[in-house]
Amino acid sequence: MPVAKLYHVPLSPFCRKVRLSLAEKKIDCELIEERYWEMGADFLRRNPAAKVPVLKLDDLVLSESAAICEYLEEAFPEPSLMPRSAEARYEVRRLVGWFDDKFHNEVTSKLLYERVNKKIIGKGFPDSGNVKSGARAIKYHLDYMAWLLEHRRWLAGDVMTLADFAAAAHLSSLDYISDVDWNRSDVVKDWYAKIKSRPAFRSILADQIPGFRPPAHYADLDF
Amino acid sequence: MPVAKLYHVPLSPFCRKVRLSLAEKKIDCELIEERYWEMGADFLRRNPAAKVPVLKLDDLVLSESAAICEYLEEAFPEPSLMPRSAEARYEVRRLVGWFDDKFHNEVTSKLLYERVNKKIIGKGFPDSGNVKSGARAIKYHLDYMAWLLEHRRWLAGDVMTLADFAAAAHLSSLDYISDVDWNRSDVVKDWYAKIKSRPAFRSILADQIPGFRPPAHYADLDF
Repeated sequence: MPVAKLYHVPLSPFCRKVRLSLAEKKIDCELIEERYWEMGADFLRRNPAAKVPVLKLDDLVLSESAAICEYLEEAFPEPSLMPRSAEARYEVRRLVGWFDDKFHNEVTSKLLYERVNKKIIGKGFPDSGNVKSGARAIKYHLDYMAWLLEHRRWLAGDVMTLADFAAAAHLSSLDYISDVDWNRSDVVKDWYAKIKSRPAFRSILADQIPGFRPPAHYADLDF
Repeated sequence: MPVAKLYHVPLSPFCRKVRLSLAEKKIDCELIEERYWEMGADFLRRNPAAKVPVLKLDDLVLSESAAICEYLEEAFPEPSLMPRSAEARYEVRRLVGWFDDKFHNEVTSKLLYERVNKKIIGKGFPDSGNVKSGARAIKYHLDYMAWLLEHRRWLAGDVMTLADFAAAAHLSSLDYISDVDWNRSDVVKDWYAKIKSRPAFRSILADQIPGFRPPAHYADLDF
C-alpha cells in the first residue's frame, strides 16, 4: 500500500468522496486540512487549479476528485466501486456528474457554502435567496433519488458504486448542518442508513468543525 | 455501428467534445439542435438534468458529456482517445476536468455565455465585468497550455486524447466569437492547427450560428 496524504477540507463533498473511496479500498491516509482560500504557495504547487482535494500517493500528486476516484479504481481495483459493463459504468459516471455538477450547483453551493464556507472564510452572512433556492432544490433531488431507489438497491444499480459515494458525500455534508429532511423518503433514508453504517464512513461521522455543532442524529447509525 | 442522434447546441463545448469523439471513432451521427432553454417535455424526458448534449445510440439515451465520452471509449475502443496506464489516464481525466470545470467557469461562461447565449435566450446584454474577467482569465489558461505543450506533444502526453478534445471544444467555441488570441503562444497555435486539421473537426468548422458570423480565420486550416 502507498503512503497516502490527503489535503482536504472536512465538509467538502469532493474530499469526502475521495475519503470514502480510499477507506473502502483500505488505503490508510493521513488527513491534512488545507486552508485553500489562503492560496498558499505550497498548495498552488500541489494543484495549480487551487482546489481540494489533493491526494499524495507516494510521489504522485493527484487532483480533481473525479480523476482521483477513477485512478484509485484502476490502480487498486479491489474492492471495486465500478460495475463491469460499459452501460452500467456509464450510469455510475452519469450520476457522479449529476451530484458533483447539478446537485452541487443547485444545492450544496446554495446551502453549505452560504452557511459554512462564507463564515469560515470571513465573507459575511448567508444570502437568504440562495439558501431558499437550495432548500427548495434539495427536495426535488431527494425525490429523484427516491425514484431511482424504488427501482434499484443502490443509486446506479444493484451494487454499491462511486455514485453512492458521490451522493452520500454531498448529503453527509448537508446533514452536518441539518439541511437534509430524512422524513421525505423512506427509501432514501434506508439507503443512507445502509451506507452510513459502513466502516468507510466512520472518519466522516467523526468530523468536528469548530463553530458548527452537528445535530445529534449526524453520527447516529439508527437515526 | 449504432444509429446515433445527438441533441446539441452548436457552440456548446460539451456538445463539441462529444461530436469530436464520435467523429474520431467514425460513428455517423445525426445532429439535432436542442432549444434547451425552453425546457420542452421531450427534452426533459431524454435528460432530467436538462442539459445538452444528449446522445441516442440505438435505444440507449446518454447524458453528461464526461460519462458519454467514457462510454464511447469503452464501447468503441478504436481509435482510442485514452492512453493505457492508470497514471496517463488520470492525467487525461484531470485535464478534462480542468477544462470542463475550471476553464468553463472562469472563461467560457464569462465570454461565450455572456456574448452569445444571453442574446439567443433573450436575456439581454453581456455583463461587462464578466466579459473582462473572462478575457483576463483566458490568458492564464493559454499560458498553462503553453507550459504543458512545451513538455509534451499533446496536452496530456505524447498521444492525442480526450483532454485535447475537451480543450479544443472550448477554444473552438470561443474562436467562433474571436475571443482567442492565437498570437499569445506559438506552441498553443501549432497544437490547435494540428487538431483543427483532423477530419473529425470538419463539422465543427462548418457550424453557422444565425446572428453571429465567425472571423475569417475560424475555418481556415492555415490561420
